[in-house]
Formats: sequence, C-alpha cells, structure tokens
Amino acid sequence: MPAPLRIAVIHTGDELLLGLQLNRHLLYLGEQFVRHGVQIDQAIVVGDSIAAITTAFHRAWAEANIVITTGGLGPTLDDNTKEAVAEALGLSLDYDLDIEANIAQHLAKEGQTLNDLGKKQCYKPSGFETLKNPVGTAPGLWFTQNNRHLILLPGPTQELQAIFEDSVLPRLKQAGLLENKPSFLSFKTAGIPEVELAALLKPLLDSHAGLGVAYCAHLDQVDVRLHPGPSNLSWAQLEKILETCQKALGEDFLGVGDISLPQNVLQLLQGKTASLSVAESCTGGLLAHTLTDIPGASKHFAGGVVCYNNDMKIELLGVPEALLLQHGAVSAEVAVAMAAGVAERFSTPYALSTTGFAGPEGGSAEMPVGTVFIGYYAPTGIWARRLYFPQSRRIIKERATYAALDWIRRELLTENPN
Amino acid sequence: MPAPLRIAVIHTGDELLLGLQLNRHLLYLGEQFVRHGVQIDQAIVVGDSIAAITTAFHRAWAEANIVITTGGLGPTLDDNTKEAVAEALGLSLDYDLDIEANIAQHLAKEGQTLNDLGKKQCYKPSGFETLKNPVGTAPGLWFTQNNRHLILLPGPTQELQAIFEDSVLPRLKQAGLLENKPSFLSFKTAGIPEVELAALLKPLLDSHAGLGVAYCAHLDQVDVRLHPGPSNLSWAQLEKILETCQKALGEDFLGVGDISLPQNVLQLLQGKTASLSVAESCTGGLLAHTLTDIPGASKHFAGGVVCYNNDMKIELLGVPEALLLQHGAVSAEVAVAMAAGVAERFSTPYALSTTGFAGPEGGSAEMPVGTVFIGYYAPTGIWARRLYFPQSRRIIKERATYAALDWIRRELLTENPN
Repeated sequence: MPAPLRIAVIHTGDELLLGLQLNRHLLYLGEQFVRHGVQIDQAIVVGDSIAAITTAFHRAWAEANIVITTGGLGPTLDDNTKEAVAEALGLSLDYDLDIEANIAQHLAKEGQTLNDLGKKQCYKPSGFETLKNPVGTAPGLWFTQNNRHLILLPGPTQELQAIFEDSVLPRLKQAGLLENKPSFLSFKTAGIPEVELAALLKPLLDSHAGLGVAYCAHLDQVDVRLHPGPSNLSWAQLEKILETCQKALGEDFLGVGDISLPQNVLQLLQGKTASLSVAESCTGGLLAHTLTDIPGASKHFAGGVVCYNNDMKIELLGVPEALLLQHGAVSAEVAVAMAAGVAERFSTPYALSTTGFAGPEGGSAEMPVGTVFIGYYAPTGIWARRLYFPQSRRIIKERATYAALDWIRRELLTENPN
Repeated sequence: MPAPLRIAVIHTGDELLLGLQLNRHLLYLGEQFVRHGVQIDQAIVVGDSIAAITTAFHRAWAEANIVITTGGLGPTLDDNTKEAVAEALGLSLDYDLDIEANIAQHLAKEGQTLNDLGKKQCYKPSGFETLKNPVGTAPGLWFTQNNRHLILLPGPTQELQAIFEDSVLPRLKQAGLLENKPSFLSFKTAGIPEVELAALLKPLLDSHAGLGVAYCAHLDQVDVRLHPGPSNLSWAQLEKILETCQKALGEDFLGVGDISLPQNVLQLLQGKTASLSVAESCTGGLLAHTLTDIPGASKHFAGGVVCYNNDMKIELLGVPEALLLQHGAVSAEVAVAMAAGVAERFSTPYALSTTGFAGPEGGSAEMPVGTVFIGYYAPTGIWARRLYFPQSRRIIKERATYAALDWIRRELLTENPN
C-alpha cells in the first residue's frame, strides 16, 4: 500500500452550497472507509461549474492516491463532472455503446426508452472503465494512473451506494488498499456529560502510552473512539481497554460500535420477551417512529397513541378527567396516567409516555416551553419525571424521546430478572 | 462590495470524515447566505490536525473575501482552529480576561465553575474581535485584513447559529456585503418526475433569455430555482415567470420558497377550519412526527394511533375482525377501515392511514416488501390506494408518509369549499 494512503472526496452540486441539501454522501463514504481501516483525508464541496470542479480536481489529484467524485454524471446541463475531469486530464469524451445498451436495458424494465437527453450519460472519458449501476442509469467510472485511482460516482444515494459496494470496495481490496479491521474501536455512552466522562476515563486510558482517544458529543450521548495510535496497540488490547471502560461506566455504558439507543432498548425487551407501548403528547410520534425504524421492532413494540387534546387522553388512554382539571395536561400525574393507560390498552408490561410544552407557543412562568414530563410504566410500578430542555421545538422532541428511551434502558438493565 | 464576492467555509472535525456526523453547518450557512443574495463558493472539510487546518486556511484566505471556520474552538486537545489560524497569520495567542469573565458568568448560571481545561477557551489570536456566545462558552472570533474577513465559529449547532444570527449577519450587512433579496426564487413541485417537469416547463422558460434555471430532485419532490442569470432579470420578472409555471403545473405545484408538504397540508386544513387524525401501521409514527414538527400543528392535527398488531386495529380503531381475516392486515379494505376508525375515534373530518410491509422481513410473492396501502377519509367519502416502494425500511416509511400527505393535499385543493 502506498504510504501514506490519502483519500480525497470531491462533492459536486450547487444544492450542497445553497442550503438545499445535506451532504449524506460524506457520512456514508467516511463510514465505509473507516470499516476497512482507512480514513478520508479531506472533502471538498463545489458547485456544478466546470471551472470549480476542474480546480478542485487538479488539487486533489496532485495530493491524494484515491480521488472520489460524487454527483454530476446525470443527463442535465448542470451535470459536468465527466467533462471537467476529461478536460483536466486531457482526455476525449467518447460515446460508449456498452453503456448505451445497459441504460436502455434498465429503462426498458421501467417501460421507458433512452431519449436524446439521456444519451449524455453514454459518454465516458477515454481510458476510463465502467462500473455497472445496478439501480439506475449513469454508471460509475474508474481510472488508474501512476498508482493513483480516480472514481466517479453518480449523485443519487441508492446508485452511489450500490456501485460503491458492488464495484469500488472489491477493487480497492484487490489492489491491497484496504485493511481487514476497522480504523478504531468505539463505544457509546448515555447520560454523562463529556467533561465528566473524560475525567472518569482519564486514569484508565492514560496508562496506555500511545493509545489514541477521541470523544464525539451528541445531544445527550457521547461516543468514545479508541485508536491503535502511534504505539500500534493490537485489536485485542483495544478490546481489553474497552472492557475496563465499560466496567467503570456501569449503566452509563450504552454499547459497543454503532448500536443505537432504540436498538438497545428493543434488545433488552427481547431478553425479557416483553413488549412496550407508548403514549405521546409533546413528542408527537417521534418516540414511536424512532423505535419502528429498527428492523424487527414489531416483535417488541406493540404501538402507541399520539394525543394532543384532553378529550383523547380521557377517551383513548383512560386518563381521569379530574387529574387533567386538577393538575393540567402537562404534569407528573397525567404522565403517569398516560403510561398506565396505554399499557392497559395495548396489554404491554412496559410503557412510556411524554407530555410537555414543545413550543414555540404555550407554557407558563412555572412551566416554560421546554418543560416535559415523561412517564414510565413497568410490572414493578409507575413513575414520572420532570425535565427541562430550553431549546427549539425539534430539539425538545428529540431530547424528550431520548430521555424516555434512556430511562427504560436503565430500568431494564437493573431490574431483577423475571 | 468587492466583486466577485467569494465565500469559503472550512469545516473542522475528524467526526465529519469518519462517518460519525453529518455536516449540518454547511446546510445552515448555505441557506443563510442565499437568503441574503450571496452564495458559498466552496466548502472544505478537514480533520482536527493543525497541519490540515493550516493548509486549508492558507488556500481559502488567498482566494476568498469571506472565510468562515466551524468547530475546533472547544476546551479539549483536539480543538485546534485558533492555534492553526494564529500560526498561519503569524499572530500570538493571548489570554483574554473579558472572555474569561463571560465564560465564568455563563457557567455560573448552570452551577459550574471554570476549570483549567476550560481556560483554553479564553485565548484569542491578537487583533481578533470577540463575538459573544449567548448560549455556550467558546465565543466566536472575527478578524479583518485587507478587506477580507475571517470568522471563527464554534461547532455546537446552537452556539454557531446564535452567534451567526446575533453577530455575523449584522456585521456583514453593515459592511455592505449582503443583498436585500435572496439569490433566487424557488418553488416546489410534488408527484411529477424531473424529466417530465423539465419538458413541461421548457417552452415557458426558454423564452426568457438569460434566465437561470436549476432542478433539485428529492424522493418524490422536485424543487425548481429561478436565478436572475446573466441578463439580470428583476425580482418582479422572476415572480411573473413563477406564476406562469404555477398555472402550467396545476396540482403538481406545491408552493413557493421553502414551504414543506406537512406545512402546506396544515395550512389547507386551517383554510377549512378542519382537523386530521392518522392511523399508522407501516409508517410507525413517522406520519404523526412529520406533522407535529410544524409549530402550531396541534390546532389542526388531533393525533393518531400507531398499531402493528391486529388486536389493536380491532380494539382501538374498530377494524372488523372479519376484514382482517378475509383480506389480511395489508389490504385496501383494512386501510379504509383504519382511516374511518381513527376519524371516528378522534372526531376529525379527515383522516389518513398506512398499512404495508416495510421490511426487511415479511411480505409475499403477490405483496413483496415495499407494498403499502394508504387510506384517505374525508366528509365526501373513503378511499384506499396501493403503492409499491421497492426500497429500504426507512425509505419505505418516508415515501409512504409523503404519499399520504400528498394525497390529502391534492384532495383539499380540489374539494368543493365547504
């Protein structure tokens, strides 16, 4: 492998610079490379103009061993990546009959034919190889020169990912450019702030000279990465260090790798062959959505009710009207009644509930926007807890969802086995 | 204003390159600039190392009039932006007592004190001005040299956005670097593929010489941007062109600017002073979540039920057991019964329902994973429709949610006024 391996990615597309689209390709490619022990060195985001792409390409091609471009291979006038790259490398763009045949075949499946606009996608710079696009029209393209590799990928997410996994990864492996293990070992924590976490782990980690440690904080979760570092610790050593961290962290340890909180909750429920239902007010469906994003969720998530108004809380969840009148809909009492009500309705041993002021309107001096009560129902009892997230509507929904899931996670972890 | 104005953004953070975090800052900054008539020219994503930041900074500073960095102003060892910039500009890093006082004041509110680690945030390159951070510790920093501006922003989203809006925008306006109108006029369409849309609009748009047109396709939605272009069309002319497009598109026209589909649905319901409820199976809460993300949703969205299993469909939604036995849970009949049931439960004149196979398991030869039925209930009747999205679980949920919302949007648009 050429040392050091340097990977540069050029993302093209005006929409990425005009605040119209998130760059999900960088997240995807970064994750793919890290899984194979290598890392992206730099990413450059430019618009659709040939000049901008050409400048970015010249730099990347001079500095990196692997250059990947995303976008700009489609049929419209602002698709310019092939044109820019061919110009920069001094190559002609040739019409390719094999590409034409593949595109025509793909379109036929959808009952369409190749029109003049679409023919733009049949050109490729001379000397480039074609990477088959199994789910769309524009193929990926591959070019090697002086041990450097240039890979052109189309912009639609599904097409980019299919070509990357079907063609790019196998070729990079064959060229000996990837490792057999990930770049680092990582674990997730929950409910402990970054500074406290770092202080807690410092004595455990400092004793391993040369170990690389990095923290990444999200809303209420901090991820920790352990890199082999300059002293090149073995994978087994990293795993041993991780074990020590897990012991020290106790309940604050969420899991190894990219396990998510809802995944973890569903696994813990599976361990008890138990199921969960949810009653949502201020989270408005996000709690159910977060759980149902996990494949197989239906085995341990029975469902839920989203109800904003009091009548529905009374009718659908059996919340006593007297409670609503006496304590208000945003109260510990109502959170408890909602959790108990939905557990009964769905016949689940466990339930979660949320009620609060997500804003921007509503709330009061004693209970400003951001005040949330979450309720937890289990075979052993019912509880409610008051939280405060002085933030935007969306963040309040996310943090309340996270807090509810983290609560049941901790309870399921420590509960006596049934 | 220096012509041409060139804006470069440098995003720092290993997590952006390691597949651990989406770069939401570029989306935000791009949108902010476009609203003020200017555009980001280029964005560069680098890791945390001083060397990588310094190289990226040298290039950007040589080419752009405005350089913005995001991230790397925090207290930990991998926060290196100030260090890299000071080195590149040959400036010293000085301890600043005003910054210290501001940070201490902020921490006191949360019952914390400034520790040695936190003091790293009190240093600033000499000659830099401080931009107050109203929601966190690390301040933003501003430096001007030869009519070029360098702006350092902290990585946490809330802090970056607060400083940008409180301090950066006002200063850029004062310096005459922003316009009074957005860069372009845009509108959204729904339910029409990009190639058909482009073909439909071509004769309308080609007659305006020099008009800039760009398309951006999402899952089932295409956005169209109209730029003043080289012939510098006036805003009024752009608005007139947009009107022509709207007429030609009919129902496929969703709205002007960044209005979203759920926003549009809630507005149409408001126009009828009517409300909506939802019964979700395969979308698992995403439909409710999408609606409740809109501020004020509770006025026209009553709530919903997420139910995966048949018992709950029978008990909570009153779906007849015979229907489930005869047609199965994934059927037009059950979609209709779910929509009618939830409308009755929540006493809403309108309702939507979803039932389908989101995968990865389930489905059959006749109804593979991706088969979804959506139901629509209105004062004028009940209908169901069969759709097929041969994609991943998450995309199936999103497209089914989108299809349901687009259905009610079209019906509300064309329904007789009540």
